[in-house]
Amino acid sequence: MQAKLDTLNSKLKDIQNINHAAAVLGWDQQTYMPPGGAAARAEQLSTLSKISHEMFTAAEIGELLADLAQAEFDYDSDEASLIRVIQRDYDKARKLPPKLVEEMSRTFSMGQQVWTKARAEKDFSQFQDILAKIVDLNIQVAEAYGYEESIYDALLDQYEPDMKASDVQQVFDELKAELVPLVQAIAEHQEVVDDFVLQQEFDEQTQWDFGLLPLQAIGFDMQRGRQDKSAHPFTTSFSTNDVRITTRFHREMIASALFGTLHEGGHALYEQNSDPTLEGTPLAGGTSLGVHESQSRLWENVVGRSREFWQFYYPKLQEFFPKQFGAVDREVFYRAINKSKPSLIRVEADEVTYNLHIFLRFELEQALLTNSLKVADLPEAWNAKMESYLGLTPPDDAKGVLQDIHWSGGMMGYFPTYTLGNILSLQFYSQTLKDLPDLPEQFAKGEFGALLEWFREHIHRHGRKFTANELIQRVTGDDGIKAGPYLNYIKRKYSEIYELA
Amino acid sequence: MQAKLDTLNSKLKDIQNINHAAAVLGWDQQTYMPPGGAAARAEQLSTLSKISHEMFTAAEIGELLADLAQAEFDYDSDEASLIRVIQRDYDKARKLPPKLVEEMSRTFSMGQQVWTKARAEKDFSQFQDILAKIVDLNIQVAEAYGYEESIYDALLDQYEPDMKASDVQQVFDELKAELVPLVQAIAEHQEVVDDFVLQQEFDEQTQWDFGLLPLQAIGFDMQRGRQDKSAHPFTTSFSTNDVRITTRFHREMIASALFGTLHEGGHALYEQNSDPTLEGTPLAGGTSLGVHESQSRLWENVVGRSREFWQFYYPKLQEFFPKQFGAVDREVFYRAINKSKPSLIRVEADEVTYNLHIFLRFELEQALLTNSLKVADLPEAWNAKMESYLGLTPPDDAKGVLQDIHWSGGMMGYFPTYTLGNILSLQFYSQTLKDLPDLPEQFAKGEFGALLEWFREHIHRHGRKFTANELIQRVTGDDGIKAGPYLNYIKRKYSEIYELA
Repeated sequence: MQAKLDTLNSKLKDIQNINHAAAVLGWDQQTYMPPGGAAARAEQLSTLSKISHEMFTAAEIGELLADLAQAEFDYDSDEASLIRVIQRDYDKARKLPPKLVEEMSRTFSMGQQVWTKARAEKDFSQFQDILAKIVDLNIQVAEAYGYEESIYDALLDQYEPDMKASDVQQVFDELKAELVPLVQAIAEHQEVVDDFVLQQEFDEQTQWDFGLLPLQAIGFDMQRGRQDKSAHPFTTSFSTNDVRITTRFHREMIASALFGTLHEGGHALYEQNSDPTLEGTPLAGGTSLGVHESQSRLWENVVGRSREFWQFYYPKLQEFFPKQFGAVDREVFYRAINKSKPSLIRVEADEVTYNLHIFLRFELEQALLTNSLKVADLPEAWNAKMESYLGLTPPDDAKGVLQDIHWSGGMMGYFPTYTLGNILSLQFYSQTLKDLPDLPEQFAKGEFGALLEWFREHIHRHGRKFTANELIQRVTGDDGIKAGPYLNYIKRKYSEIYELA
Repeated sequence: MQAKLDTLNSKLKDIQNINHAAAVLGWDQQTYMPPGGAAARAEQLSTLSKISHEMFTAAEIGELLADLAQAEFDYDSDEASLIRVIQRDYDKARKLPPKLVEEMSRTFSMGQQVWTKARAEKDFSQFQDILAKIVDLNIQVAEAYGYEESIYDALLDQYEPDMKASDVQQVFDELKAELVPLVQAIAEHQEVVDDFVLQQEFDEQTQWDFGLLPLQAIGFDMQRGRQDKSAHPFTTSFSTNDVRITTRFHREMIASALFGTLHEGGHALYEQNSDPTLEGTPLAGGTSLGVHESQSRLWENVVGRSREFWQFYYPKLQEFFPKQFGAVDREVFYRAINKSKPSLIRVEADEVTYNLHIFLRFELEQALLTNSLKVADLPEAWNAKMESYLGLTPPDDAKGVLQDIHWSGGMMGYFPTYTLGNILSLQFYSQTLKDLPDLPEQFAKGEFGALLEWFREHIHRHGRKFTANELIQRVTGDDGIKAGPYLNYIKRKYSEIYELA
């Protein structure tokens, strides 16, 4: 058995190395690659994904897995976890024809280039044809994977293996029932919070310099990672010891970089803190996107938008930006960064309205995948839903349907994980507080080690060993995702800020 | 035949994509990768080179080549050139056992990390063990390739396929006979040239900004390439449309960035100007390192250290650095950048003494490869030769045996190509001047298009289609490398500057 396990590990290692090489190419594509490099990059990524797919779906891998299924490893062991997780990946991968994999990679890579230009020129029509192809490829993928209830399930399963579209619908309905009235109540108290203090100009380099302080304080290891700039922030890793985040900086929008850095930093902590025994194996990293997002939203919002966090960091921020903040009271700043108001851009949205952006995308994706909405009609549908959910109409496509990178990169079925992450962040954190009730006081002293250690112990170190539902069960005792703690947190926080009854 | 050619091209395309992916990883390793990423990066590169080697040495490639050898393509056609060049590459690659290829990649990647630290800490002893392994791997490679006269030939052939060590020795002897007395004569006239004007402090960002002017003026296309910073400058390409250079900037050494940028820019022009039909094929790029270096040295020295070049650029440089250059006469600056004096660092050496650094390395490499010198004794041997050739003793290993990256990356047999490039730059350029006698006047107006076009037409566009000797024959009519034009250029230029008889 050990020999077979060694053989499997050796093969998986090569495959993982190819996947990580592709990730480096993807990182470069979004950070430093000159425009001329796009066509060749698409070909390079296509070759890598084709070869990785061929190697992974080889019959020999299946045979090794079948043999190893007989081995009696403890469920929690790295060995049993590897066999379990890889069997699941293998079964999925075998369902995709190599030609489709290659075409996906090439199309998605080109899609990002087309989208970048279309977005810069605020012109959906440039993006329409390749998006239609991307939707079609996603339908082909879903059909290849197969599904029972809804085509959406097959795609969602790539990112959130424990969930079906109907589960998402149920938890989204629960949220909607509480959030829509809350948004309404806040709208009636808009005058309570003014964020004029954020509507100033902030030197970009100074934003970068300040951002490094909390990023490192929360535990991001700069010896095993780095930060770069990109048009759309993201986290990627090529090893638990090489985890990279990107941030975007706008002179007029300091909140974007402040909270974007903490958000990606939260993802990065998850990646950097896989157990060292998992390094280089397919078990390193995060188990599902919802759990991943729970970590980013935890650090961005639960920690980064808390009073205690700024109790420590606001005096420092004032030192970096004396002209802008020197005469501004901390409580004014705290309310400004928590101002809730319907807005056009998802990634800049506040905690309350953020989820409405997700509901919109979830509905549009389902419509596209079931052909009840044509790609050509997407901008109109987008704008109609924006009006319905948020009472706003985008002035152009860049601030509307072109704002997110996901579809251009082929990712459909991904968006719901953002809201699942919001929910999970509180489902986990309410448990953390039971173990460590004085965490907020620690934040007020700039201390985040205990919080990181708690998540390292309960979530990070396991990498992909356990599914999201297994983790939820182990950490909280719940039998799945529960919206309660998140809704309680949102209602309590915003009732207080907006002085609601 | 067309079907077989298509099959071959399709396979080569995948292999080229993997090689280019590895090049992206190599670029990242030297520019942005955090220290923690080193171990995983070595594994990733090892996997890519193993897979590329396996795919390229597959029997099917050999069968396709054998069949295609029967086809009657015109010698100059892309098709005939591809078959010819790939047959040569294939025969070489088949001689290397896959295990050795994988071990080389892993060792060379780790070697660079070890060297970086050893160099920073000026401590050869840290590097000694892995260097011994690298020398041993190079000996294994040479034995696997086989050779007739000398083990060095087998390694040199990787970089300069038309040359043997004895050819190098012959042309080096010819150079030595003229350069050693010239260095002596210049030493007796040291007072004629003072480079105090370069011994000032120069803001790094301003150096960067200025450097972009000539870089773009000589024709480097920033839409199809970029510049970054690295400890050791290099040029790499992932496509003819994605060619990257790196430059190092020192506050106290403006010449390093000024001429380093032009040097790498010269390499980059060669890579960017392969004929578009060669894009993505193994024929894109440069035919040999000597020819490649002829392009970098052409732009760095023949153009970049000429009076005419600075007739145009010196007023601009004065605008960027008014404090440092505002009151300095152009002729004083011209002499300063051409000051010839024995120095410790190869890449900072002037045109006359530069080749002595190469003679030293050529001799040491031959001694290491024939086991007449032990790695443990290398620093001592280095210092003895520095004393003998240049009359200097390095104060530490960083300024001595650790200064170059090449050995750490596994490259032995590479250094002679630098001097071959110096020689070839003039062998070609003396031909250019026959066609375009007014080039220097064009430089004085900041015009470099005609020079680039001449090289594009005669050298660049052919990529790897013709060998170095074939190109020399086609461009100059000579039957191989000839030191005459280079020696004439050096003697004329330096006799004038140093007012020698």
